[in-house]
Amino acid sequence: MIRTKGVTGPKGFKAAGVAAGIKDSGALDLALVVNEGPGDAAAGVFTTNQVKAAPVLWSQQVLKERRLAAVVLNSGGANACTGPEGFQDTHATAEKVAEVLGRGAVEVAVCSTGLIGERLPMDNLKAGVEVAAKELADTDEAGLNAATAVMTTDTHPKQSWAQHPDGWSIGGFVKGAGMLAPNLATMLSVITTDAVLDGDALDAALREATARTFDRLDVDGGTSTNDTVLLLASGASGTAPERGDFVELLTAVAADLVKQLQGDAEGVTKEISITVTGAASDADALVIGRTVAEDNLVKTALFGSDPNWGRIAMAVGRAQARVDPDKLGITINGVALFANGRKAADRSEADLSERDIAVVIDLNLGDGGATVLTTDLSHGYVEENSAYSS
Amino acid sequence: MIRTKGVTGPKGFKAAGVAAGIKDSGALDLALVVNEGPGDAAAGVFTTNQVKAAPVLWSQQVLKERRLAAVVLNSGGANACTGPEGFQDTHATAEKVAEVLGRGAVEVAVCSTGLIGERLPMDNLKAGVEVAAKELADTDEAGLNAATAVMTTDTHPKQSWAQHPDGWSIGGFVKGAGMLAPNLATMLSVITTDAVLDGDALDAALREATARTFDRLDVDGGTSTNDTVLLLASGASGTAPERGDFVELLTAVAADLVKQLQGDAEGVTKEISITVTGAASDADALVIGRTVAEDNLVKTALFGSDPNWGRIAMAVGRAQARVDPDKLGITINGVALFANGRKAADRSEADLSERDIAVVIDLNLGDGGATVLTTDLSHGYVEENSAYSS
Repeated sequence: MIRTKGVTGPKGFKAAGVAAGIKDSGALDLALVVNEGPGDAAAGVFTTNQVKAAPVLWSQQVLKERRLAAVVLNSGGANACTGPEGFQDTHATAEKVAEVLGRGAVEVAVCSTGLIGERLPMDNLKAGVEVAAKELADTDEAGLNAATAVMTTDTHPKQSWAQHPDGWSIGGFVKGAGMLAPNLATMLSVITTDAVLDGDALDAALREATARTFDRLDVDGGTSTNDTVLLLASGASGTAPERGDFVELLTAVAADLVKQLQGDAEGVTKEISITVTGAASDADALVIGRTVAEDNLVKTALFGSDPNWGRIAMAVGRAQARVDPDKLGITINGVALFANGRKAADRSEADLSERDIAVVIDLNLGDGGATVLTTDLSHGYVEENSAYSS
Repeated sequence: MIRTKGVTGPKGFKAAGVAAGIKDSGALDLALVVNEGPGDAAAGVFTTNQVKAAPVLWSQQVLKERRLAAVVLNSGGANACTGPEGFQDTHATAEKVAEVLGRGAVEVAVCSTGLIGERLPMDNLKAGVEVAAKELADTDEAGLNAATAVMTTDTHPKQSWAQHPDGWSIGGFVKGAGMLAPNLATMLSVITTDAVLDGDALDAALREATARTFDRLDVDGGTSTNDTVLLLASGASGTAPERGDFVELLTAVAADLVKQLQGDAEGVTKEISITVTGAASDADALVIGRTVAEDNLVKTALFGSDPNWGRIAMAVGRAQARVDPDKLGITINGVALFANGRKAADRSEADLSERDIAVVIDLNLGDGGATVLTTDLSHGYVEENSAYSS
């Protein structure tokens, strides 16, 4: 994985990131990613939240054709809970992009992120689209500007790019930081490839890759109103990959983006993996992993470097999944602290002073397994989410 | 409600609270509540967590007869995840109480609270039972000592007592502070009455009262391994109440205990009520109320006195219940900030500087409703749960 390249890594893509004045700070806040072809296949996955932002409703609609010419993204406002007027703003944004690119609005996806409930400054946004269109380039710098323009409370831009030996490649960027939860972490991500694939193949590959990556990060349970992952294929490499090869590389790039989301989550001081094994089913393992990942008592204990397996046992027991307390085992950073329903070692034997913490929960019931990534609950998280509206 | 009386308020009950040396601090850590009759009807409700502490397994078993002579409670250790040996410790505790009172062990319920996973110091505990038996009294002071002996991170003992005009009364104590969640807040509570009721009537009344009180407090989603509410009836008033009158007064006493739990939750700076109206069903309303109550982004915003209704809308939308975003309304402290799917007032119009915050979520879908009590997520919560094992 190379993190200095992103959406402009694959051939056939141009990008730009500009300061359109949507954010008061004057920071970059508008990104444009354009697929110059020859292909235009695309796919998307979206938040499961019932309260969906206007750009999600729009992009879901246009993605039904599985074709995209461009994606326009803004930070500085989520355009969620803004009623029919907010939807009209999204539509007008797509129309503006279509106009400057000479394409149709139904070929343009829209993504927004920021505070919920406020209308976007449309004059600034439309003027920004014109500037961005002029700055479009296929350079690393242009891709990095796009990745930077979508940041909210993120502390740095997040990109990943990887090339297959056959010559085609996959690259992307992601923004995250807060409201990170199951069923797509709270984030926007655009991933591009120059491989030759049709829309149906892209869609299947994207669902398979996100189920094992974006859907397995859970920072605070807050599935947002705006979560979107888009995948665009230019076909510019001229190579049609094997399905398995493509899914594998796409999953690797997505996993690298998710790892960067975890490492830059709000207030994070610990990067925690919760691995559940021996569950009655994979679904049970995932439910248990998420319940533990969202448990504030577990998350505060790990912030304090305290291998408090009792709190983990409590969280496992309250999960809506099959659990036999007498068979349960909990291992933290390689030390089996709890086994077969009773204490197996003193908690002082597990050293949690480092940033990475690995929790393994063995249910000893079957073959089901899952790994969920999460972070600790720190003073930084509370500070960041109480002192500022976001 | 009178908070200076508790389990010894009703006639026919004696109590004691002693320092048995279970806690290293030397604080009171063992409580005994004895029903001197003439009746011995009793009922209990217990945690829904699949990982149940030994005293829960024991007390569930003995309560099948719906008769109790006494309850023994300890702080300083939850006796959870302690295997068959832990269960033997609970059994031995009940046997010891039975011995000193001249009753049978199956008439003695046991409750424990404290750190999960450690065995109890049984020599200290048994010696403490002997001391407690000698100190049993029907005074307010004895009841207060019992209420004090069950405290863990609680900052003060919590009692409530109320008398019906017909002469019978209901009193109780509760401990809470952390791991407070649906399906019985994490806590132990003993409630006594001198009304004349049989075990079945007590059981039905207790389930009805707890469903509307203890089950509606959700501080951190952490349904513990030890949650227990016990109700004992001495019949010493000689009066058999109307069923409706009894449930009403029991609910009032339980609600007063729950209010005290909320006010003394770990790190609390805001006492928040989440009222959901217009839901498709009461069950939907409860699911939405709990999802909002457990949402860290909502809880940190309220800690910061920020009426961030966008985060509330996000939490409502991710609840497993029917929601129509275009009909949704959110009112905070009397100010309608969001109505019919769009912003209705600037958030600066809602003043959240006081300790009490009332959130009303109107779904405009039906007649379902529920109120869930919760607290904010503060630096104090993080500090208390990261700096100490509990």
